Amino acid sequence: MGGDKAPAEIIEGARQAVEQLGVDVVLVGLPEVVEGTGFPTITCSEVIDMHDDPAQGVRRKKDSSLVRAAEAVRDGRASAMVSAGNTGATMAAALLRMGRLPGVARPAIATPIPVPGATPTILLDAGANAECTAPWLVQFAQMGAVLAVERYGITKPRVGLLSIGEEETKGNPLVKETHALLRETPGVHFIGNVEGRDLLTDDVDVVVTDGFTGNVALKTLEGGLKFIVGKVLEAMTSSDEAKEAAKVLLPTLVPLADELDPDSHGGAMLLGVDGVCIISHGSSSARAVVNALRVAQDMVDKDVVGHLRAAVA
Amino acid sequence: MGGDKAPAEIIEGARQAVEQLGVDVVLVGLPEVVEGTGFPTITCSEVIDMHDDPAQGVRRKKDSSLVRAAEAVRDGRASAMVSAGNTGATMAAALLRMGRLPGVARPAIATPIPVPGATPTILLDAGANAECTAPWLVQFAQMGAVLAVERYGITKPRVGLLSIGEEETKGNPLVKETHALLRETPGVHFIGNVEGRDLLTDDVDVVVTDGFTGNVALKTLEGGLKFIVGKVLEAMTSSDEAKEAAKVLLPTLVPLADELDPDSHGGAMLLGVDGVCIISHGSSSARAVVNALRVAQDMVDKDVVGHLRAAVA
Repeated sequence: MGGDKAPAEIIEGARQAVEQLGVDVVLVGLPEVVEGTGFPTITCSEVIDMHDDPAQGVRRKKDSSLVRAAEAVRDGRASAMVSAGNTGATMAAALLRMGRLPGVARPAIATPIPVPGATPTILLDAGANAECTAPWLVQFAQMGAVLAVERYGITKPRVGLLSIGEEETKGNPLVKETHALLRETPGVHFIGNVEGRDLLTDDVDVVVTDGFTGNVALKTLEGGLKFIVGKVLEAMTSSDEAKEAAKVLLPTLVPLADELDPDSHGGAMLLGVDGVCIISHGSSSARAVVNALRVAQDMVDKDVVGHLRAAVA
Repeated sequence: MGGDKAPAEIIEGARQAVEQLGVDVVLVGLPEVVEGTGFPTITCSEVIDMHDDPAQGVRRKKDSSLVRAAEAVRDGRASAMVSAGNTGATMAAALLRMGRLPGVARPAIATPIPVPGATPTILLDAGANAECTAPWLVQFAQMGAVLAVERYGITKPRVGLLSIGEEETKGNPLVKETHALLRETPGVHFIGNVEGRDLLTDDVDVVVTDGFTGNVALKTLEGGLKFIVGKVLEAMTSSDEAKEAAKVLLPTLVPLADELDPDSHGGAMLLGVDGVCIISHGSSSARAVVNALRVAQDMVDKDVVGHLRAAVA
């Protein structure tokens, strides 16, 4: 029921995912939307939309698709939930229905930033907690490291703290306090402060920050990349001669643009809840839905939640 | 004395600026570096380097180039100072020697983000104050608006507050408090919250944020653009055929890359001190120095400091 292109693109994405990934998809939604699609369904009578307050929406709309999807994971009728709807409500539904993993202070959104030619840089928190404490950030570092090991096969993930200078004296009070704690945290290979310019490099595997800064950085990066890709395409279609020239370059540039396209990431992972919850962006196309389901499948196959539980407890 | 490429590129940039801009340049530095260059000089016996603590550096090294440059502005022997050295020490020297404009709580770094085809988006604070209060942010909004009017000729600058969602309920406590204050601030055309993706658009003229978030956003944007420009260039030189094709596209792409190049911005402006202080980035080339001197000249010609004084008082 969620996302700017729902339900058509969501259902189409589910269809493609079944074919391409061999994953079993259950559609959760209003009967008139999900029935007759050929998918197994869980029906509901309410929808939490983009304008609903997340916590209130979950509390009041107990028979909404988001709440029912989270309950399906809680009850073992689904292995994971995927949503392109109201992000805050998705998090709230997952948190309230699945619950936190024992010992987790706050779940965090982990977003993989694609780095062509290397494993992605995992940014967390990418927006779940606008205000954080240093111990939460330390836990985000631990959870991000588990994700890097289990999902991306990085043996000894390098964990950096997002700041405004490499020196430990740089940053705001939260960063300084977190820096001191991370240096003493066993099991976390802390490489010190990193900067925004390091996100798209292979110099760091996990970048830890509060959800406000993380979300700003992510959207700034997405905006910048979208802008420049648009400008390059504009140049390539500016004349017949340019279009001819573009044909030579596109075989190299298209895979790059593709790799950087948010639709290819397949959505962010909510880490710290007792189940797999994938948050796909609001403008998800069918392709984005396929990739979000791929992430969900991968998270389940690799039992990332089990590994997180063991690491945090 | 400051910057990775000092003194050669700095002196070369000064030379070019004299020719191209007709600006009078005074070099401030150690005698063995600045004497014999043909420029008028102010000599000093000390240098605050990148490893010095900014405030301590300024307090202890009273005969350093940064302190002497700020004193020259204070004493009317120079109309502006430009530095590619230790940013924190540059700010501290300007603040302690020139002083704040009456009524200014904290000076802020205003960085113009180039938007091809439009006036730049002014981001402030881009790093002067890692921790801020809401009233400071309101003053940044006022100062940014004055800069937009006086330097860029924007009649009614649209001021946005950097957050993680357009709704006024989105953001951290600082943003929520600032949002409420900005709505009631006379003389500021507040358009509400904006997001990182709006920085490179013509939807907003002045983006207000704390110095930590602003610096992260700026470096993230710079890193992203640098990355993608590098990848496009790589594609364009990957084969002889690609190089031929590139020749057709470069006339469109080079001006774009040039416009987005930090060296073209010409440095950030420290707003709120009683004098013109331009902060050029550490890796400034001669070209960046020319552009920084161009900004300094423009700030002086348009009496931006005088207009700020009148607006804030």
